[in-house]
Order: sequence, then structure tokens, then C-alpha cells
Amino acid sequence: MKKHIVLLPGDGIGPEVARAAKRVLEAIAEQHQHTFTFETHNIGGSAIDQDGTPLPEDTIEACHKADAVFLGAVGGPKWDDLPGHMRPEKGLLGIRKQLGLFANLRPVKAFQQLLHASPLKTEVVTGSDLLIVRELTGGLYFGEPSERRNNGAEVVDTLAYSRHEIERIVEQAFQSARLRRNHLTSVDKANVLESSRMWREIVEEKKQEYPEVTVEHMLVDAAAMKLVTNPSYFDVIVTENMFGDILSDEASVLTGSLGMLPSASIRKDGLGLYEPVHGSAPDIAGQNKANPLASILSVAMMLKHSFKMEEEAEQVEKAVQDVLAARYHTADLNINGGIPVSGSELANKVIEQL
Amino acid sequence: MKKHIVLLPGDGIGPEVARAAKRVLEAIAEQHQHTFTFETHNIGGSAIDQDGTPLPEDTIEACHKADAVFLGAVGGPKWDDLPGHMRPEKGLLGIRKQLGLFANLRPVKAFQQLLHASPLKTEVVTGSDLLIVRELTGGLYFGEPSERRNNGAEVVDTLAYSRHEIERIVEQAFQSARLRRNHLTSVDKANVLESSRMWREIVEEKKQEYPEVTVEHMLVDAAAMKLVTNPSYFDVIVTENMFGDILSDEASVLTGSLGMLPSASIRKDGLGLYEPVHGSAPDIAGQNKANPLASILSVAMMLKHSFKMEEEAEQVEKAVQDVLAARYHTADLNINGGIPVSGSELANKVIEQL
Ligand SMILES: CC(C)[C@H](C(=O)O)[C@@H](O)C(=O)O
Ligand SMILES: CC(C)[C@H](C(=O)O)[C@@H](O)C(=O)O
Repeated sequence: MKKHIVLLPGDGIGPEVARAAKRVLEAIAEQHQHTFTFETHNIGGSAIDQDGTPLPEDTIEACHKADAVFLGAVGGPKWDDLPGHMRPEKGLLGIRKQLGLFANLRPVKAFQQLLHASPLKTEVVTGSDLLIVRELTGGLYFGEPSERRNNGAEVVDTLAYSRHEIERIVEQAFQSARLRRNHLTSVDKANVLESSRMWREIVEEKKQEYPEVTVEHMLVDAAAMKLVTNPSYFDVIVTENMFGDILSDEASVLTGSLGMLPSASIRKDGLGLYEPVHGSAPDIAGQNKANPLASILSVAMMLKHSFKMEEEAEQVEKAVQDVLAARYHTADLNINGGIPVSGSELANKVIEQL
Repeated sequence: MKKHIVLLPGDGIGPEVARAAKRVLEAIAEQHQHTFTFETHNIGGSAIDQDGTPLPEDTIEACHKADAVFLGAVGGPKWDDLPGHMRPEKGLLGIRKQLGLFANLRPVKAFQQLLHASPLKTEVVTGSDLLIVRELTGGLYFGEPSERRNNGAEVVDTLAYSRHEIERIVEQAFQSARLRRNHLTSVDKANVLESSRMWREIVEEKKQEYPEVTVEHMLVDAAAMKLVTNPSYFDVIVTENMFGDILSDEASVLTGSLGMLPSASIRKDGLGLYEPVHGSAPDIAGQNKANPLASILSVAMMLKHSFKMEEEAEQVEKAVQDVLAARYHTADLNINGGIPVSGSELANKVIEQL
């Protein structure tokens, strides 16, 4: 198969981990006789520096034409004092919105070798394997009005959803649940928000179409508690944009493997943007220390969701597990009795396993 | 001193824990020659049953005239299927708003005897002692419009704040920080929300008046992570209503002592509503099993914040610690080598220690 991939390395350790992602894609292409072509564009802080905007036009255009997009990371102290519209993360928010990537998939899985680094007791976190499906292009993030009023005496933001936006993310979540353990937790604040009450109704409507999936509703405050006390309770969680932002970051630290977590932001036709959950880590940038595994697992998500290459995706996931089982790791992971290697060496190990 | 206290026992275990709270107040009054008078009113589900509304007029009136209010708990499956305006929690939301109780204080403290029940590793949670100051009468909870549009094709909720509302909660937080370890973390989502940008500006303005307090800004997603990975990092956290709802519930499970956590909802003139953080626990209601310590610690907060009785407040806190040190506990706590007792017996033990 032929696939065209846009790489957006971004800032900090972004370029290093994007390089690892590309090398894994090339290795997979060679083995399976696919043709993957690549094209690199600017985003975030480096785009501000080079193009004067966090999201240049040619980046948007290239992404529109791609089969999939890989993003490294954006942001860093260098751009922290710029005005709002010139901040690196505007590039990220912008590309999600421009491409209509409405579903953010954030899997969190406990790796046995890394549980010692979890803040949770081993018996609490063992067996955790959950997926947060976060709505990504609506809610408080893009609702209008979002403004000061009366000379700054008041301020409003707007949490806005259309029925269509809620329906499509809820459908995505049911479909994800069907491919996993058939358990869906819909998280809202229906005792306070009208948007949550509509969300709940839509989940109730849609569940008729997925009789094999068990559905429950949970308030966001209760979910924030249960993620900590009993993370293995969850299979798939679906929620709106801001709740998803908070809960998926909370969930990301549970297993002690933040440097391992991939993410996908997708739309219905398969186009997706894949990025590691970790940030741009400017303090270790350019030192070949960055852990490439989250990016490599993001590549696995790309193979699966955008290219429908199930087998290749599993091959990549398995290679990562084998490398961990062989106790190779970057400095961030600190596996007991392990073999510390550089970021590029760790990527080599994965490629050797493929 | 003379003080008049309104008791709102509410639902489930509410009446039992309210009884314990009242007994501790009576014991304190006797010892210190205060005159505490009491008056009991309905709220929540029991008010729906008896008065046809979760917040009867006479309850509101009585609270307006009180020096302090104690609330047990509201809610239960019995009222879960009623329409929105007839839900027990409307009583809670209503009384907060009616009384203008804009500051919700939620302390979370690790008790050494209970750390085994924490989901966190002991070395992660040890020493945690934080206070969340949550704005309680603004934001998404009360913003207008909050409605369906275009025949249900769209829905909006509104996150609204006035400058005045933000200023007063930020001031409260600085004052709390000054009485503790002088460290304030202001939590927002300034990279997305205009209200958060205004919030951040106001914190920056106010900090001039509190030079002894160190202030930092943290994004809500980062705060949700750090609460789990490093809870002892925090001293005082201040945040808006919805973020505060989520983070304070997340924080409440960190120390393994949810049954121990008090809360206060206060306004500037000292009037406050005090309630345990735990819910109405209908499954154990009426069995004398409910842990009264969260309610008794809420009484300590009442003594301190509404009555300015610092000494009496410390006496109550110390009595609770002594009772735990003597290893008395209700079934929920399960202290190693401890002495299980009923709820009323545990309250007796505290009163004996006073
Ligand atoms: C950078 C920020 C705007 C973004 C978000 O809140 O969506 C980030 O936190 C994320 O979750 O990808
Ligand atoms: C019952 C509910 C409306 C309430 C809230 O969200 O404020 C509760 O969760 C709380 O935190 O006291």
C-alpha cells in the first residue's frame, strides 16, 4: 500500500522522537512492501521562529492531503511570554480544528516492568488497561462568545456542542468499546450542566445500536476519584473536551509510564494525527536522551487507525513489549536491573525486534 | 459566646453524623461556657418527601439568620429519577448560592494511621497536607445561558465570572496560604479560556498585597497529574468552581481517609456551611455504622471560621487525632490492630477526649 505521511517534529525533543517514529515506519514499509512517503513541516514554537505563526498555511495544506500526520511535541519556555494567538499550543489546537480531528484516543496500559515507577500501590494499578475517548473540537475550547465584557468587569467562556458533535464521538466510543472489553463509561456533570444532560440522552439513544456494550454514566468528580482508587475498573471512558483533558492527563500518570503513552486524534474517514502524550521536555532536548517509545506506539496507532494495518500495528506493539522485557530503557524509565541506552539506541532495539 | 446553629441533617447517614456534630458542639459549649442554640430544617431528598422541594423557604430563612450551618449529606437512589429541579443536590447548590457562600475550603491531610488505605504508595503520600480553595457560586454552575437551541440541535452552558467574584476568592486563598505554609498554586486553563487569563491577571495583581506568599500558576491538566504523583508538593490550591469540583474530589481519595474529610463553604462575614465530604451512603444509613469524624472535623472548621474559636477548634482536632492514635475506628477505616466501634461510640470517644 502507498501512504503519505506528514511529519510535524515541533519543539524540544519533538524532532528526536519524530525521527524514531519515521525510522520505525520505514522499517515496517520495507518488511511489508508498503510505500510510505514523508514530508516535514513546521508547527508550534519552531514555526513561530521560522514562519512567524504557530500554524503556517503550508502545514495545514500538507496535512489536508496526507494519509496521516505525526506530531512530535510543541512548546517551551522560549515562547511562554508571547501573546495568546502566538503561543505554540495554538498550532496544536488549530491543526486539530482545521482537520476536524474530533476524537482523541488516549490508551493507558500498565506495563509490568514499569509499575515500580507508578505513584499507585502495585495491587491498585496492576491490570489497568483503559482508553479515554475525548471529544476534541468542541466544548469550552472553541465555544463563542469567549470574551471580556463591561470593560473587563466580567468574562465569559462558552461550552457549546451540537447534537451531531456529541453523536459522532459517542459512536466512536461505542465502536472502540466493541473492539475491547465491551464496557463504556460516559463521564459528564449531568447534575449541573445542560450539555451533560443532552450528552447523557444521546448515549442512551445510541446504546440501542450496541447491545453488546454495557454502558454506565459517571459524574466527572466521581470519575476523577475512581481513576485513582480503582483504575482497572475502566475499559473505555468517553467524555467532552475539557473533562477529557483533565481525566486523560490524570490517567496518564497512574501507571508510571508517561514516557510510554501514545495518542491519536482522528476523524471518520481515517485521517489522524498521532503524537506522544509527553511534552517537549526542553531540558533534555538534543541530548539523545528522550524516550522514543511513546512515539513508536503512536506509530502503531497510526498503522491501525489510519492505514488499517492491524498486523503491522501489533508487530510494533509487540516489539516495544519485547524490548522492555529485555530490560532496555532510556533514563526516564529506570527499570530494575535494566540496561540504560540512548533514545536512538532504544529505537534501534525496537527496529531489530520487528 | 452565644451562637445559633442550623442543622440540616439531609438524607442517608446525614442525620447520624449531624447528631454526632451536635453532640460535640454541645460538649464544647459546656466546657467553655458558650451558649449554642440549635434548630433543625429539611434539605435534599427528605425535603422533597416532606415539603415537595429540595430547598424549602423556611430552611433558607433559618440559614440566613444563623451564625453557622451544619449539613449532613443529600441524595440517594430514591430521588435519582426525578427531574433536574427536583433533585436533592439542587438543595445543596441552592443554599450555597442563596447564602452567597463563595469559598469552599477542602483540606486534605494524611493521617499516618490510615495511609495503608491510600491507593498511593506510602512514600508518595506521606506528609501531604493541602487545602483546596474552590470558588463555589460562579463559573459553569450558574452561568446563563444554559439551554438547548434550535430544537435540540445545539446546547450551550456558560462559564461566567465577574472580576469581583474572582478577586474575593483569590483574596480568600492568599489569606489561607498566609495561615499555612505561604505557598499558593492557582490552577486554570489559561492556554484555552479567556476566564482563566483574567483569573491569572487578578492573581498577579493581588499577589502584590501578600509578599510573603509564593504564587505559581498551574494548568488544570498538569495539576490533575501532580496531585497524584506528588501531593505533598501542594500547600493551598485556588481554582474556579468546576476545576475545584474535580480536583478536590480527586484529592479526597489520595490519603485513604475519605471518611475523615471535612469541608467549609464560607462568605466574608463569617457565615459558613460545614459538611463532611463523603456522601449520604444510603446503603449503611440507620445502622450506626457511619464514621462521624468528617462531621466532627467539620465542626472544628465551624468553630474556627465562623466563631473564631481557635482554641476550641484545635481541641476538637486534637481529640480526633488522639482517638485515632488509640486505634478506635468505624468499619470504613480498618486500622491495623484497631478497635472497631459503632459511629455513636466513636463520637463518644472523641467527646471523652475533649
Ligand atoms: C496544549 C493544550 C491546549 C492541550 C489541550 O488542552 O487540549 C493539551 O493539554 C492536550 O491535552 O493535548
Ligand atoms: C452535588 C454536586 C452538585 C456538588 C458540586 O458539584 O458542587 C458536589 O459534587 C460537591 O462537590 O459538593
